[in-house]
Amino acid sequence: MEIGFLGLGIMGKAMSMSLIKKGFKVTVWNRTLSRCDELVEMGASVGETPAAVVKKCKITIAMVSDPAAALSVVFDKDGVLEEISSGKGYMEMSTIDPETSCKISEAITSKGGSFVEAPVSGGYKHAENGQLVIIAAGDKALFEEAIPALNVMGKKSFYLGQVGNAARMKLVVNLIMGTMMTTFSEGIGLAERSGLNPSDLLDILDVGAMATPLLKAKGPNMIKSNFPTAFPLKHQQKDMRLALALGDENAVSTPVAAAANEAYKKARSMGLGNLDFSAVLEVVKLYKD
Amino acid sequence: MEIGFLGLGIMGKAMSMSLIKKGFKVTVWNRTLSRCDELVEMGASVGETPAAVVKKCKITIAMVSDPAAALSVVFDKDGVLEEISSGKGYMEMSTIDPETSCKISEAITSKGGSFVEAPVSGGYKHAENGQLVIIAAGDKALFEEAIPALNVMGKKSFYLGQVGNAARMKLVVNLIMGTMMTTFSEGIGLAERSGLNPSDLLDILDVGAMATPLLKAKGPNMIKSNFPTAFPLKHQQKDMRLALALGDENAVSTPVAAAANEAYKKARSMGLGNLDFSAVLEVVKLYKD
Amino acid sequence: MEIGFLGLGIMGKAMSMSLIKKGFKVTVWNRTLSRCDELVEMGASVGETPAAVVKKCKITIAMVSDPAAALSVVFDKDGVLEEISSGKGYMEMSTIDPETSCKISEAITSKGGSFVEAPVSGGYKHAENGQLVIIAAGDKALFEEAIPALNVMGKKSFYLGQVGNAARMKLVVNLIMGTMMTTFSEGIGLAERSGLNPSDLLDILDVGAMATPLLKAKGPNMIKSNFPTAFPLKHQQKDMRLALALGDENAVSTPVAAAANEAYKKARSMGLGNLDFSAVLEVVKLYKD
Amino acid sequence: MEIGFLGLGIMGKAMSMSLIKKGFKVTVWNRTLSRCDELVEMGASVGETPAAVVKKCKITIAMVSDPAAALSVVFDKDGVLEEISSGKGYMEMSTIDPETSCKISEAITSKGGSFVEAPVSGGYKHAENGQLVIIAAGDKALFEEAIPALNVMGKKSFYLGQVGNAARMKLVVNLIMGTMMTTFSEGIGLAERSGLNPSDLLDILDVGAMATPLLKAKGPNMIKSNFPTAFPLKHQQKDMRLALALGDENAVSTPVAAAANEAYKKARSMGLGNLDFSAVLEVVKLYKD
Repeated sequence: MEIGFLGLGIMGKAMSMSLIKKGFKVTVWNRTLSRCDELVEMGASVGETPAAVVKKCKITIAMVSDPAAALSVVFDKDGVLEEISSGKGYMEMSTIDPETSCKISEAITSKGGSFVEAPVSGGYKHAENGQLVIIAAGDKALFEEAIPALNVMGKKSFYLGQVGNAARMKLVVNLIMGTMMTTFSEGIGLAERSGLNPSDLLDILDVGAMATPLLKAKGPNMIKSNFPTAFPLKHQQKDMRLALALGDENAVSTPVAAAANEAYKKARSMGLGNLDFSAVLEVVKLYKD
Repeated sequence: MEIGFLGLGIMGKAMSMSLIKKGFKVTVWNRTLSRCDELVEMGASVGETPAAVVKKCKITIAMVSDPAAALSVVFDKDGVLEEISSGKGYMEMSTIDPETSCKISEAITSKGGSFVEAPVSGGYKHAENGQLVIIAAGDKALFEEAIPALNVMGKKSFYLGQVGNAARMKLVVNLIMGTMMTTFSEGIGLAERSGLNPSDLLDILDVGAMATPLLKAKGPNMIKSNFPTAFPLKHQQKDMRLALALGDENAVSTPVAAAANEAYKKARSMGLGNLDFSAVLEVVKLYKD
Repeated sequence: MEIGFLGLGIMGKAMSMSLIKKGFKVTVWNRTLSRCDELVEMGASVGETPAAVVKKCKITIAMVSDPAAALSVVFDKDGVLEEISSGKGYMEMSTIDPETSCKISEAITSKGGSFVEAPVSGGYKHAENGQLVIIAAGDKALFEEAIPALNVMGKKSFYLGQVGNAARMKLVVNLIMGTMMTTFSEGIGLAERSGLNPSDLLDILDVGAMATPLLKAKGPNMIKSNFPTAFPLKHQQKDMRLALALGDENAVSTPVAAAANEAYKKARSMGLGNLDFSAVLEVVKLYKD
Repeated sequence: MEIGFLGLGIMGKAMSMSLIKKGFKVTVWNRTLSRCDELVEMGASVGETPAAVVKKCKITIAMVSDPAAALSVVFDKDGVLEEISSGKGYMEMSTIDPETSCKISEAITSKGGSFVEAPVSGGYKHAENGQLVIIAAGDKALFEEAIPALNVMGKKSFYLGQVGNAARMKLVVNLIMGTMMTTFSEGIGLAERSGLNPSDLLDILDVGAMATPLLKAKGPNMIKSNFPTAFPLKHQQKDMRLALALGDENAVSTPVAAAANEAYKKARSMGLGNLDFSAVLEVVKLYKD
């Protein structure tokens, strides 16, 4: 299967490499075209524009940084819309809000194309190892056609029905992730100030009912006040804001998530927005003796 | 090794049974003595009073329901204090607050006895299968002497230093557990009201960085509004209150846990205190259409 | 001075009546023109369209229900933009968000008109008695020219500088109002459940440092569970959402306001959105005995 | 009427002076007796011990710093209990928790004495000017007998029924005060960071429905980051903790007050505990540019 891939940031590069390694024919495009070179050495073709990629490929995947970039790739000159047509599929794997996703979906389908939104859960290491979790919604036939490719990039794919559902589910998942990280932080901060060894806390959590890959991965760094950026704090806070907005729309009161969101906002005010979101620990630990 | 066991509630019974099955000689006592019968059939001896048990055994374990019961077993007539002495050890495995633990420790050690506090993490199923996590502090020699017994009851034991540390650590762990449950609840409630299938949410969480044994065990019941009591909500709320008090004492601000605590208080006001603590979901789901 | 007045809802009607009673020549318009009748009996002229009103008057005031209506009155066919020009002033007194206000300001000034945003604090009783508090920003000359009219409608007017400042200030004020109401509600609920007489609480507050016209006006109704709508709860919650968004934009963490906002969301989920915002008390009082 | 007065701290001194000035015969005692000198110059007698004061006076008032001091004055050697008897009244005006108040009440009444708890609202300036608000509960006859004295110290006295009610009401009032101060702080912080003049905010609030003597008194200092201690932040936080505990006891969920309490805890962690409680503003304003 010939697959187009738009966007070669950290995530997109790892994902497209996985496809190439598993034998897919991939045509790539990136705003800065030089980022395509490494992929070409591995066997990829290059498309000069998003439109050129779509023209060439039956299925095109987009993995860009934010809603503005996602819209630009589709609607701008030489964009996806110029070549999308009946028989062609477009999979939006960028993390974008439900409204943007629906807007892109409508444009694609009005041209006869089929559309799937498929945001992922996991970082670039998961992308490199094909261990992403893929949350998909939209055209079911396209989803099923793409399963071989999805199975290369992710360890598990979920299909959630109509467009918007996957974007919404991603927000719910990230609301839980964000709150979970604040409670780990509060626990670590409380342990430390109460004369306990936070390292013991990590060990105890790791063998019990609250064991998570999340804390196992980040905890040891956190207790050394190391926050190497896997997922920037400001992006986590943005996702919490969007998830709270989803709750607002549906009159769902989530006071615990709201308190967590305020902790991330405080972290931003302390200049921690570009660190990993686990740096919210620094808000808890702020004190003067 | 001859081991005394005071308190045959759901947890104590399962724990003492494990000891007997693994070949320990166990002398049991319970306030309602008839609860000893089943243990006797398995080979246990019975002590008429806590004092009688301590007189007979080198190490005595207590597993009772709350601080008041823990104090009563030690300080009342025919209590532990009457027979504890140099060369004898007392392990308090009940979940009690740091102050009560220290009070018992002082009384035991002033009589020459050695003391370990060793609250557990896990429910009665973990107790039956010897899969508890044991958090211990106090006399190190006693802790080490008791390791063979601890290894039968638990899958892992931690030694945290001076008396009070284990009680405090247990509070930190339960603060995390309580907050985590509220964020799962908010996520489930938000998913449901946003037109998503909460069952999909459980599946997605289960394969990602936030996978926990906690949600795996309780989630499927929660989304059916079933809350069979493993750990009563009112006890979870009490632990959050104590953990927040620990933070207050040490000037640690934990706004996310405070918000979670208020959710449990609201659940109590709705009459859910005796259900499992996962019933906090009902607070999130409260709405009229 | 000839003054145009667009929008004769509860507030607009009271405000325009005040102007007429004090001798201003007023030309009114309302979407449903029949609402103009009562004003005409008092001496007002009628304009068939917003454009017609602007054509006739040097200063036109708008007081409509929400941002959508504010935009419509200006930008739609026969709207303000068609007749606004150099020498004419437009005062937007509706409560709208800073972005909408700036958008209207740009349109008006690009046609040569001058613009002031002037949201008010206070309800229709204050409007009837000329006791509103007026928060204004924008063209200073227009503000000063309008002072005679502002002094009729309000007891005090503030000028805050550039357009957007008044809209932002209104949000800050309403964030405080919304949180204040939740704390009154929590206090009343706590008093009642603790065996105290909430009426005593009102009396005690009223003679001390926390005495407010707000509680004096609403408290007696609240403790009887009466919530006659002066300011709908759903609008208060919307203002809290916008104020929190303002904080988000500027990285200001306001966890107390965020908790209050969640209480209003919970009230909405309980079907209380159209009652007065003091009905947030019902969230606190929700319990089963 | 001969009145005894125990405790000549800032508040007690101002209150007893008011009594002397209005012609009451007052016998004073203070732990550091030299603090009595100034009162003696004004005409007071001195009692060597609390017991001596009670022996001499029909009604004795206590105004000490905390529950421990309140208990000590009553129960220690040469304390109130040694001389209290039928026909004598004891008024506890210190701010103490309901449990301590009930304990003192039981001791006094078991000796035949009558007891009133009467905590006050207001600071030492209110005490100097006889402008305190007095919240009383307990023996009604004693309350009525004391009215002439109460009317000198306070502008208004409330009688709330059985012992404990006044202590509880005081907690409810201080919960509202504490939360109100956090919302003022969040508003000021938000205004400032949004490019508004916080001084304008104070002016606007002062003419509207949220005008309070509290903000009028403290606001101008707050916006200059001056926090001269009238009521120490750590005491405000202690009262919030006790008020939340009252809610916990009665299953009343107060998430907004809980969020406010966490702000005060954060302020304590930042070393602000001895400043005025309005210093909670510094928590909101914490940011790095």
